[in-house]
Amino acid sequence: MGYTIAVVGATGAVGTQMIKMLEESNLPIDKLRLLASARSAGETLTFKEQAIIIEETRESSFADVDLALFSAGGSTSAKYVPYAVQAGAVVVDNTSYFRQNPQVPLVVPEVNADALEQHQGVVACPNCSTIQMMIALEPIRQKWGLERIIVSTYQAVSGAGQSAINEMKKQYCQVINEELDPKNVTASILPSAGDKKHYPIAFNALPQIDLFTDNDYTYEEMKMTRETKKIMSDDNIKVSATCVRIPVLSAHSESVYIETATVAPIEEVKAAIQAFPGAVLEDDTKEQVYPQAVNAVGSKETFIGRVRKDLDIENGIHMWVVSDNLLKGAAWNSVQIAEALHQRGLVKPSKQLLFELK
Amino acid sequence: MGYTIAVVGATGAVGTQMIKMLEESNLPIDKLRLLASARSAGETLTFKEQAIIIEETRESSFADVDLALFSAGGSTSAKYVPYAVQAGAVVVDNTSYFRQNPQVPLVVPEVNADALEQHQGVVACPNCSTIQMMIALEPIRQKWGLERIIVSTYQAVSGAGQSAINEMKKQYCQVINEELDPKNVTASILPSAGDKKHYPIAFNALPQIDLFTDNDYTYEEMKMTRETKKIMSDDNIKVSATCVRIPVLSAHSESVYIETATVAPIEEVKAAIQAFPGAVLEDDTKEQVYPQAVNAVGSKETFIGRVRKDLDIENGIHMWVVSDNLLKGAAWNSVQIAEALHQRGLVKPSKQLLFELK
Repeated sequence: MGYTIAVVGATGAVGTQMIKMLEESNLPIDKLRLLASARSAGETLTFKEQAIIIEETRESSFADVDLALFSAGGSTSAKYVPYAVQAGAVVVDNTSYFRQNPQVPLVVPEVNADALEQHQGVVACPNCSTIQMMIALEPIRQKWGLERIIVSTYQAVSGAGQSAINEMKKQYCQVINEELDPKNVTASILPSAGDKKHYPIAFNALPQIDLFTDNDYTYEEMKMTRETKKIMSDDNIKVSATCVRIPVLSAHSESVYIETATVAPIEEVKAAIQAFPGAVLEDDTKEQVYPQAVNAVGSKETFIGRVRKDLDIENGIHMWVVSDNLLKGAAWNSVQIAEALHQRGLVKPSKQLLFELK
Repeated sequence: MGYTIAVVGATGAVGTQMIKMLEESNLPIDKLRLLASARSAGETLTFKEQAIIIEETRESSFADVDLALFSAGGSTSAKYVPYAVQAGAVVVDNTSYFRQNPQVPLVVPEVNADALEQHQGVVACPNCSTIQMMIALEPIRQKWGLERIIVSTYQAVSGAGQSAINEMKKQYCQVINEELDPKNVTASILPSAGDKKHYPIAFNALPQIDLFTDNDYTYEEMKMTRETKKIMSDDNIKVSATCVRIPVLSAHSESVYIETATVAPIEEVKAAIQAFPGAVLEDDTKEQVYPQAVNAVGSKETFIGRVRKDLDIENGIHMWVVSDNLLKGAAWNSVQIAEALHQRGLVKPSKQLLFELK
């Protein structure tokens, strides 16, 4: 007997990858339901060579659903996740809406799958930029402890959705084919669709992802700080981030600096990374081997390279971390959570209904 | 009476900007000589609406030259700078060849113009990525001291020359117009023309600039470390860099983290930056104001924004620093050095000949 699984936001950049990851998963799936906005309802998408008609997401959509994977934005999750839980589904939510809720586990399965045991109907999938950093740092934290992280990101445009990708491509056409100055191209989406001003991304680097919070950090940067502490169950880890969008299609890169609690020999650090599930060490400076965004697209792994000691601080280590933000950063991590829930016998209706219906 | 000035490497990405910066300078110029390789000899370039014929660089090229600005690569400087000095010229060298020579001042005029007084025929212009960081940090160092720098760069392709720009544009044509996968485009220049392997830059981020040294840092990264210490005359400043090439045409961006010696109130830090010559504060998160590469192109200033306290470390500050790598990062800083030499009466033949003719 298999599950009925619903994908909410099935037509989006992450949703379409979720369908693909479910195809590659060994989860027992009896039925796949594809939910999206009214705009897409009636269209079809293919799952394991079967055409599936997209339905509009409604309060009543979740009858008989065992597992619901949400990736349609925070407001859709806020509205419909409680209905899914009430209907008896376990939700894996890929938005930021529930991530800091103390009753919702925030899970990267390689790092803290045990947290799933406490779920009460909802599990949150962390932010893309956090997930890949966790894969790189957990093997180090386990052996030498982790006191501090300073991270600067080089994030791909696909993280802002397909419309942002389309706009960037149009901007490149304007510069390459129409010879427009890069500062004069059309921009209406990035850095954040919900913010007031919009800037070009082609041939540019934008030090804003998501809106600004009151402390002059962006929400994206604060996600990296808060989610790291929650996933690693350690409020004492110091994390400060600078999140930057660059003109890459898919796969985020990160320049990560850490300080370990005890001094970590660099060759042992590399061996620990290489042995960690989901992590791939690509590090040979003599042969110019290091992770690259264009090579990481389509892979489920996180690639780590340029691992080296700080020039002055004995317990300081720098590295370069790259992963496909739509896969390990979103769709694949969500499906991995679903697989882990299945393996642990945790795909079952929540006894308590924590979240009010609106 | 004005000077005879020679530009060596006049046809390159930096050389052509040097000519433009000399046009905008108030240096008294009687005659401009344009030197390049045999390949370009006989062609003409325009200076102040006059056509000037390009000459091949030779050992005998520097008779009667008062000031020679070199930007034709380290090997050209190694070979011809001694002849220029012997002929009585003062050399401003934009390559890395002489930068760590203890008898050669390494100068960002806003920071350490006094070092020019010790010149013995050659002044070195620092690396582009170092110069703009110095403009951002010197105002802070002067008031609160500077103990530590961790920097991740987002460097433009123009730093690798016009041929790298041309290759990147061709790669974008292949992806945008011919729908090639970004990992399959043609690459023969970046990350470093002198290295074995070459990788795509379009829609990519390459964590290698220049060759790797023995300590797994690149030469570019070690330039930022060594040049910072020399320019700020302080071997105790800790500097570790991660230098990354991104698909931007011109203007380098940098995510800079520093620790000051005494705690610096953030509003006072911003005021100090704003008051510093050559620095422009662009920092208003409420209005989404921060420096952007596409806006910095063509400006001589260095733009600083996203200035904020570290979330945990009391003396820690993060910022985002952007400047046109061909201007303040090369051509303009070189011409500023020439102007400062002139203002201080230091454009005169060296008494000692430090550098052997080869």
